[in-house]
Amino acid sequence: MDAAIARMADAMSERGVALRPHAKTHKSIEVGRRQVGAGAVGLTVGTVGEAEVFADGGLDDLFIAYPMVPAGPKAERLREVARRARLRVGIDSVVGAHAVADALGDDRERVSVLVEIDCGGRRTGVAPSDAGPVAAAATHLGLDVIGVFTHGGHGYHGPDARAAAAEDEVRGLTEAAGSLRAAGVEPSVVSAGSTPTAFDSARGAVTEERPGTYVFGDRQQVALGSIAPDAPAAVIAARVVSLNTAARRFVIDAGAKTLTKDVPAYLAGHASIPELGAVVDRVSDYHGVVEVKDGGSLPEIGQVVLAVPNHICPVVDLFATFLVARDGAIIDTWRVDARGRSG
Amino acid sequence: MDAAIARMADAMSERGVALRPHAKTHKSIEVGRRQVGAGAVGLTVGTVGEAEVFADGGLDDLFIAYPMVPAGPKAERLREVARRARLRVGIDSVVGAHAVADALGDDRERVSVLVEIDCGGRRTGVAPSDAGPVAAAATHLGLDVIGVFTHGGHGYHGPDARAAAAEDEVRGLTEAAGSLRAAGVEPSVVSAGSTPTAFDSARGAVTEERPGTYVFGDRQQVALGSIAPDAPAAVIAARVVSLNTAARRFVIDAGAKTLTKDVPAYLAGHASIPELGAVVDRVSDYHGVVEVKDGGSLPEIGQVVLAVPNHICPVVDLFATFLVARDGAIIDTWRVDARGRSG
Repeated sequence: MDAAIARMADAMSERGVALRPHAKTHKSIEVGRRQVGAGAVGLTVGTVGEAEVFADGGLDDLFIAYPMVPAGPKAERLREVARRARLRVGIDSVVGAHAVADALGDDRERVSVLVEIDCGGRRTGVAPSDAGPVAAAATHLGLDVIGVFTHGGHGYHGPDARAAAAEDEVRGLTEAAGSLRAAGVEPSVVSAGSTPTAFDSARGAVTEERPGTYVFGDRQQVALGSIAPDAPAAVIAARVVSLNTAARRFVIDAGAKTLTKDVPAYLAGHASIPELGAVVDRVSDYHGVVEVKDGGSLPEIGQVVLAVPNHICPVVDLFATFLVARDGAIIDTWRVDARGRSG
Repeated sequence: MDAAIARMADAMSERGVALRPHAKTHKSIEVGRRQVGAGAVGLTVGTVGEAEVFADGGLDDLFIAYPMVPAGPKAERLREVARRARLRVGIDSVVGAHAVADALGDDRERVSVLVEIDCGGRRTGVAPSDAGPVAAAATHLGLDVIGVFTHGGHGYHGPDARAAAAEDEVRGLTEAAGSLRAAGVEPSVVSAGSTPTAFDSARGAVTEERPGTYVFGDRQQVALGSIAPDAPAAVIAARVVSLNTAARRFVIDAGAKTLTKDVPAYLAGHASIPELGAVVDRVSDYHGVVEVKDGGSLPEIGQVVLAVPNHICPVVDLFATFLVARDGAIIDTWRVDARGRSG
């Protein structure tokens, strides 16, 4: 993890691009402190709940990179966290801008706003050419619009998709920044983000990158080529609880409530077990089933193995704590401070 | 939920079969009390961590229906919970029997043991004919073997698989019970379990059923035909945060960290939104993306919708609390007491 933090910080420093890591991956104040200590300008979060936790932890330069439509108790919570953090929020609609302005009331000048654009991921965000009109409407409501952001999520579609998605991020953001200028709003922040695209899109009009998963890595990032095969830094320690020698099958006590069922199209199975050259083929809540392939070795019942999950972000969210290891020894325990803060 | 609890309790009572619901679905002391209040003989759990929580809540007749191989701190915890609960545990190997006997030490007479058999789900459990030798070995170690259990997990393979999996449960358990008798161990408990198979396998040699998901139901159980289409009792309230009218796409603020990525082969998408006739097509951590089909209606940004998850068990595990509704009004808040207790 230390190496991953340093590698990304150095790469962004070399490119003259600000690094604002997405903290939804680790949800940990300890990890966030290390990212900021290595040069990150602040953190990205996905929810008001995450912003509350990191602000409480003293990591109070935060961007909620999500199209905010706060209402009811969440509007109250947004205003409260805006009073104790340097906060940016995302919008992708005039309705959203109204909701943010209403939620913040007289505190709206405390918060900066970025307009989200869709650069090809077909999720949230307006078309790049629509960023200016949304920004102008938000400005008219008294909001301080400082720029545009996007997430080239289609960089996750496979190893061949990364470069094109990064290109889409740069192109979409460049057009969106122009749209803001045409609407009379000067964009000081032009923000892209994802681990697969971060290295390639940190150029041109882009001023900031928001990768998250890089901090730990996972099986998916290895397959995408974002990190080295031996780089994943967060693994699941599981015990072999059942062994069928005749069927060449064994079961570990890590299942869907530990590894999740996140399986991208270009991966088979739910996790790898590198020390056995094995893959977890099926999971139920508390069981991970491995059908050992020809040439693979069978473990012993009771043996502890380390499994590399496909996607580490939702896995971390299932745990209360990290065991922190260095040189093969457990040296500390850290809390998953923002566990379950999905809203 | 009340109706589901009553329906299952009545069905098992009619069949003269004991009901021991699997509490991994709800992880809630309040819900467990209602199940026992309706006639359940006790609860099933999947981990020592769940057993600890329910024992603390006064629900202290518990079966850890999992092949136990306790070691280290978990062995200590098993012995501790065995001192304050009426406990049954599963084994599926002689190695496991040794580990349980070692963990319990002089307290081993406090705990009953059931041998798990594989009736076709290809997960844990020995072949039915091997149940007797494992039971005899465990008895030799001073353990009190009281019967056999299985989980016809292949009943989840599709709507046509339920009846055959139930038949496999009955056949496998009947053979396993005979194997125990041949080894000199009289099986007083012959336990099957799963929501898809519970109604069909509660017969013959079977003395106990352990369904879990029935208590809430989900989209998967509707598709399997285990429950009525309008039966799911636990839903996710989510807000529409983004709307692309031209692309006929909208996004809700419930994604993989809320709905999970559990998608059985016979379902498309990650959840249904019945009020809109829509399905959540894609999820990322905090986003659920809906591509509205022809004839489907578009919601408004800010609108709250109710989503029915594919598989409720891992969804519940992501939350700290339930909001409890009756007749459309929130009447209470219950804790997910055993949240994250996956070990």
